[in-house]
Amino acid sequence: MEREFIKICKQSFNSDQITSSENELYRHSHDESHHPSVEPDLVFFPESADDVVNIVGISRQFQIPITPFGTGSGLEGQVIPVKKGISVNFERMNQVIKFSPEDMLVTVQPGITRMGLNSIINKHGLYFPIDPGADASIGGMVATNASGTTAVRYGSMRDQLLDLEVVLANGTVIHTGTKAKKSSSGLHLTGLFAGSEGTLGLITEITLKLHGIPEHTIAATCTFDTPRACTEAAHAILLSGIPILRMEFVDALSISFVNAYGSYGLPEKHSLFFEFAGMQKAVEEESLLAEGLLKDMGCENWAIASDSGERARLWKARHEMSYAFRHIKGMTSTGGDVCAPISKLPHLVDYARELIAESGLTGGIFGHVGDGNFHTIIMYDTSSTDELAKAEQINGRLAERAIELGGTCTGEHGVGIGKRKYQFAEHGAALEVMKSMKQLFDPENLLNPGKIFL
Amino acid sequence: MEREFIKICKQSFNSDQITSSENELYRHSHDESHHPSVEPDLVFFPESADDVVNIVGISRQFQIPITPFGTGSGLEGQVIPVKKGISVNFERMNQVIKFSPEDMLVTVQPGITRMGLNSIINKHGLYFPIDPGADASIGGMVATNASGTTAVRYGSMRDQLLDLEVVLANGTVIHTGTKAKKSSSGLHLTGLFAGSEGTLGLITEITLKLHGIPEHTIAATCTFDTPRACTEAAHAILLSGIPILRMEFVDALSISFVNAYGSYGLPEKHSLFFEFAGMQKAVEEESLLAEGLLKDMGCENWAIASDSGERARLWKARHEMSYAFRHIKGMTSTGGDVCAPISKLPHLVDYARELIAESGLTGGIFGHVGDGNFHTIIMYDTSSTDELAKAEQINGRLAERAIELGGTCTGEHGVGIGKRKYQFAEHGAALEVMKSMKQLFDPENLLNPGKIFL
Ligand SMILES: Cc1cc2nc3c(=O)[nH]c(=O)nc-3n(C[C@H](O)[C@H](O)[C@H](O)COP(=O)(O)OP(=O)(O)OC[C@H]3O[C@@H](n4cnc5c(N)ncnc54)[C@H](O)[C@@H]3O)c2cc1C
Ligand SMILES: Cc1cc2nc3c(=O)[nH]c(=O)nc-3n(C[C@H](O)[C@H](O)[C@H](O)COP(=O)(O)OP(=O)(O)OC[C@H]3O[C@@H](n4cnc5c(N)ncnc54)[C@H](O)[C@@H]3O)c2cc1C
Repeated sequence: MEREFIKICKQSFNSDQITSSENELYRHSHDESHHPSVEPDLVFFPESADDVVNIVGISRQFQIPITPFGTGSGLEGQVIPVKKGISVNFERMNQVIKFSPEDMLVTVQPGITRMGLNSIINKHGLYFPIDPGADASIGGMVATNASGTTAVRYGSMRDQLLDLEVVLANGTVIHTGTKAKKSSSGLHLTGLFAGSEGTLGLITEITLKLHGIPEHTIAATCTFDTPRACTEAAHAILLSGIPILRMEFVDALSISFVNAYGSYGLPEKHSLFFEFAGMQKAVEEESLLAEGLLKDMGCENWAIASDSGERARLWKARHEMSYAFRHIKGMTSTGGDVCAPISKLPHLVDYARELIAESGLTGGIFGHVGDGNFHTIIMYDTSSTDELAKAEQINGRLAERAIELGGTCTGEHGVGIGKRKYQFAEHGAALEVMKSMKQLFDPENLLNPGKIFL
Repeated sequence: MEREFIKICKQSFNSDQITSSENELYRHSHDESHHPSVEPDLVFFPESADDVVNIVGISRQFQIPITPFGTGSGLEGQVIPVKKGISVNFERMNQVIKFSPEDMLVTVQPGITRMGLNSIINKHGLYFPIDPGADASIGGMVATNASGTTAVRYGSMRDQLLDLEVVLANGTVIHTGTKAKKSSSGLHLTGLFAGSEGTLGLITEITLKLHGIPEHTIAATCTFDTPRACTEAAHAILLSGIPILRMEFVDALSISFVNAYGSYGLPEKHSLFFEFAGMQKAVEEESLLAEGLLKDMGCENWAIASDSGERARLWKARHEMSYAFRHIKGMTSTGGDVCAPISKLPHLVDYARELIAESGLTGGIFGHVGDGNFHTIIMYDTSSTDELAKAEQINGRLAERAIELGGTCTGEHGVGIGKRKYQFAEHGAALEVMKSMKQLFDPENLLNPGKIFL
């Protein structure tokens, strides 16, 4: 017998906006993480903010949970509808609403992906630089406060936002900001929705700052003998004041995996990847300065990629890192995402290496060291619960250590399911305040229940 | 008869921590705005977060309002204890708690001023660049989300924050963040307290990002025939991608006032002030590029100040702008603080000029045009209520127009008393959400009551 809320949905929307087809339920049951999948009862494709208001009304009326869905590239199970209900997929709300090159800003619907957005704006000399590797939706990136390789210069998603349109649990539609570059008016809600993972409201419009495409770009790589030497060099680069665009660490094991995956022929040593970007003379000066500094610190294999083909190849290798670990048959992986003050990084990376070595598992370490943020990717046999437990233990101990060092259990992937258990250790008394805010915004706990909070 | 809460305060704290001396009550009755002063019943000088927890307890017990006080340099009456009660002055909590040059961050108590902080950190090659002209306290700057001349590069106070320690109305002490450069953990509270003007909690510790002191700096000025030409040129500079450190507009009238005030001998025309800062070659390239671009647009009087004495003199003139208007006997002034998308600025500045001309009052226009933010400073005879009304009307109409253009009624000064009446126009349905958050954090309305919300 069909459940009442499904009937009402069928009456309220076009038939192609709702589905419970097997493949769609499956697609909306998981993301790119290892967290166990749960299928929603229904998938809904809104085409407007009004549709979102209506689905939220139905959710309230029948007390059926709602879980927003971007592209499902999340790494902490954020889109998994753990309490079932309705998965709200924003892929049809993927339009640019207003592009204002003269103000270097754009207003988009949440379902547009970052590459989709860039393909529209790049021809005007502007770009949206936040790059989490995956071609994620802008809505999902806001909701997880994503960042990635360019955060060392541009910050995280939260730093890119001027205004959000949000549908609240009670059906109210609000705007959190304005189109002005800065404001001291009212209480600041924009930053609160960034990283809220669909637990406080559904985002239906996003106004983003854009940046000029740098005139000139130079990419470079170099290697060191130890992970510690790499992170110390990264620290020195930061302190030098060179305004790098990207600075990534990749350990030797990860390099060997990605070489095997894509025949990149990179030197299989602990490596740093750099990108310098800006006006030509400045960039050339920066890359020379960096080269001198790194060589003084004993780097080897310094190599520059200045043409765009070589550069693209390098960053493709960097972005394929996690797939390189995951394509192996019968094996899958878990990922850590700690972030700590940069001076603590050499210690934290060493500690990660030790933990992996102790466990007997295979695991790589790489990440956005310019932010003090790195990932572990630890492989385990899918048929072995013991190996999964070991892998999770490593990430857990790393998260705890990062918090002890004044850092965070998640630099960019978000809390979702996997990082809920560290929320009290990280936030202490503030966790109760966060819970009371969740209660204020969503008193019936219908918006992505089971995420962020245990 | 002494009121009970004063007795309890006397029992709870050292005698030099509380006062109701006439001059202290007066000092805490006003800020630098024109809003009518109100004296508190008592002034309290906390020396620790514990003291703050205790005073909050007393406030709750006796239902006596509390108003935090930084240096009283605010421009919207934020420190005026409109419901009387206790003014909590943070000047004794002015220490650096932890300076970590290796992580480019510092944790301070709220009462330290920006110059006090810089005098400690500059010798390590680092600086805290946010510069609202006045030597404000870091706590006050967080609480108003201050910015100023350098926001065009570094953003506002909110963008500088990693962690706040806050004493809530119920006496709980929370930390809103961590020492990591980025995080996607929990709900983001840090940004919410920035700009909350003491209405949600009392800030007792602040962790700030620091920046390297630029190796090389060049300041420059030029003039144009109209305000519109200035703002159009500023827009062109922004679009060119030159990463300026400061870009200020000052209209001809303001220049003539500041010349009279400080004998600066600046050309009395509509002017732009620039500062380029970074690595030497880059800065030289930037300033050349800017010069070419501005001259193409018809600028005159291009002048470079590359030695530090000349530069300091130029920025001193810029910072004295509002004092230049205020030292005239029998006259005082009100200030506007609108901010709009940069493409709307030429129109908004023209509109401001028209309104001032119509009113028959004398008023200058200057501000941080790189952010789309500018101030009006309109003089009125203190003995004429009619002139004050006219001056306020101008600022009101400007605020409304800025909001219509997608901007904000306050770019950096905050809401306080004067901008409460524009909150609904600017925030619409979100205003109710903000009020419910105020209610959540401060159910008895004891923390700086009468501010932000009508
Ligand atoms: C290979 C790979 C590399 C990655 N590298 C990085 C990296 O470097 N940095 C990084 O930050 N992340 C990285 N990620 C993680 C992922 O790309 C980000 O978390 C991304 O932000 C998720 O976007 P999405 O559109 O896929 O969102 P989804 O995974 O679909 O959803 C994420 C969360 O957002 C919510 N949500 C989605 N849309 C809305 C909306 N409109 N309103 C309210 N809530 C909404 C969902 O409910 C969910 O809680 C990587 C992922 C992969 C697979
Ligand atoms: C000449 C002049 C020029 C100015 N130019 C600029 C400018 O360019 N840009 C700009 O942004 N501002 C400017 N201002 C305004 C002013 O300097 C800023 O608003 C500044 O941030 C106020 O800091 P303060 O320490 O004086 O705070 P106060 O005025 O003392 O207080 C401001 C608010 O902060 C709250 N507060 C203070 N300390 C705490 C705490 N520890 N916890 C919680 N709440 C607290 C107070 O309750 C009040 O609501 C200018 C002022 C003057 C006089």
